[in-house]
Amino acid sequence: MEQIGFIGLGIMGKPMARNLLRAGFPLTVYTRNQATVAEFVEQGAKGARNPREVAEQSTVVITMLPDSPEVQEVALGPNGVIEGIKPGSLFIDMSTIDPAVARAVHAAFAERQVEALDAPVSGGQIGAEQGTLSIMVGGSEAAFERARPIFQVLGKNITHVGGPGAGQVAKACNQMVVALTIQAVAEALTLAARAGVDPARVRQALLGGFAHSRILEVHGQRMLENAFTPGFRARLHRKDLRIALNLGREFATPLPATAHVATLFDSLIANGGAELDHAALALVYRTLTGEGTTATEHSATA
Amino acid sequence: MEQIGFIGLGIMGKPMARNLLRAGFPLTVYTRNQATVAEFVEQGAKGARNPREVAEQSTVVITMLPDSPEVQEVALGPNGVIEGIKPGSLFIDMSTIDPAVARAVHAAFAERQVEALDAPVSGGQIGAEQGTLSIMVGGSEAAFERARPIFQVLGKNITHVGGPGAGQVAKACNQMVVALTIQAVAEALTLAARAGVDPARVRQALLGGFAHSRILEVHGQRMLENAFTPGFRARLHRKDLRIALNLGREFATPLPATAHVATLFDSLIANGGAELDHAALALVYRTLTGEGTTATEHSATA
Repeated sequence: MEQIGFIGLGIMGKPMARNLLRAGFPLTVYTRNQATVAEFVEQGAKGARNPREVAEQSTVVITMLPDSPEVQEVALGPNGVIEGIKPGSLFIDMSTIDPAVARAVHAAFAERQVEALDAPVSGGQIGAEQGTLSIMVGGSEAAFERARPIFQVLGKNITHVGGPGAGQVAKACNQMVVALTIQAVAEALTLAARAGVDPARVRQALLGGFAHSRILEVHGQRMLENAFTPGFRARLHRKDLRIALNLGREFATPLPATAHVATLFDSLIANGGAELDHAALALVYRTLTGEGTTATEHSATA
Repeated sequence: MEQIGFIGLGIMGKPMARNLLRAGFPLTVYTRNQATVAEFVEQGAKGARNPREVAEQSTVVITMLPDSPEVQEVALGPNGVIEGIKPGSLFIDMSTIDPAVARAVHAAFAERQVEALDAPVSGGQIGAEQGTLSIMVGGSEAAFERARPIFQVLGKNITHVGGPGAGQVAKACNQMVVALTIQAVAEALTLAARAGVDPARVRQALLGGFAHSRILEVHGQRMLENAFTPGFRARLHRKDLRIALNLGREFATPLPATAHVATLFDSLIANGGAELDHAALALVYRTLTGEGTTATEHSATA
């Protein structure tokens, strides 16, 4: 059985690591917060003092970290995974990061005879807790098959998208579509309300046809109820749009809609909405039309 | 039983009228093409020589026409419905038109003691044929209840959205969300392909999570297969976006995303794509990136 190392026990990583432990995998963990490490040790995991020590104890090392610089540091930096990992092991980064960084990580591990997968997820904290994440995977077929029993503990819709970095490209595409659909719903429901029509009934009418989306269902309802407690924080979605826009620049691909929705997220953040759910993009439209609470007021009263 | 008059037997109106005839409603029809009228007469309907004659024979008059000017002409012009309709009758316009024109039609009929409904539909030719249209209705509760048995023959998701014009507002919102979701999917799948990742696998990965939409399912697949035979023609969707943008101006509501996607539809149409399915918006992205066939080439070879 694989010896799993797990690094990064935040909002997403913690429930993911817990699910692996419950599924019976031997687990070694590391995260900055030593109290969280102690919590896992109590539940039967081994603790480690740094990423190198995790790698020394493991045949598969998983990272779940906030952004590209953290992954570079933990994977390739001093006392990083690469210093402890044995040839023939597997490195899986499940963070959402720049595909270019993901490809660099693949290349660095390949030099040590270690295969890597980029395997970012979608589905949020609830998906992590329930083991129902969508997992988008880049890397070799062999590495994907080796990781499959682990992914099956963590998620439901598991797709091998392509070679190194392809998982991160898919995740960037996912975040573009989600952001743009939120904007579409926000713009349409704002227009309905301004034209004197009940946006709840418009949402209902739209759910039955081609305008149907998960976003209209879930985030449309959030907009109607002003329910902007995260959920997925606006500042994190903005980060993911930066990744998409970087990709567009790297591959000379104009992304006019993504560039535009990114500026609306900037406006939401500038108005105090960084920590609100991304559905709060609707508040930008209220600011544009001089209606309702701003993000600052909303954050103050929430 | 209501005596139904049906005016406008085009791609949508013809199968709708046929479904009403099959459901056993007495039917009087008029459309410009006299061969189509003759076809309905053979099937047991009565024919009329103009909209006024249809109204004289009917307790409920339905119109299904291309755009606002045609509805104004047929409803309120010389030999129009208003000249023949009896007090206590019901006028239902199921075309997609400007909400302001819809409200004017309501007002004109109200002066004759005739109630009106604006009841635009979504679901296309297939929805019309199968009687599974989404119907978005504006007008009084009483008029809506009177029309319900008729709507139940024509559609499935039937929503009373609000007062006069509210159905048209909902339809405008529907067309905004559909156009913007098509753009989101086109932009994301274009980026995937440019980054060397199989867009079919990206679509598959995205279908399981928050990026899920009917558009990703249906129009995403069309983009992968270059299947741009309509479907719903780009020039008609552009018309519907004009209605949405007019509404935005009328109610001082900025619609930045809708304004932008309208310019992309203009580009598609300028490049020869007016008669292609609206999923052909993806061709604009191929033009932007210097890849693939333009709409003109596509139309020439299709």
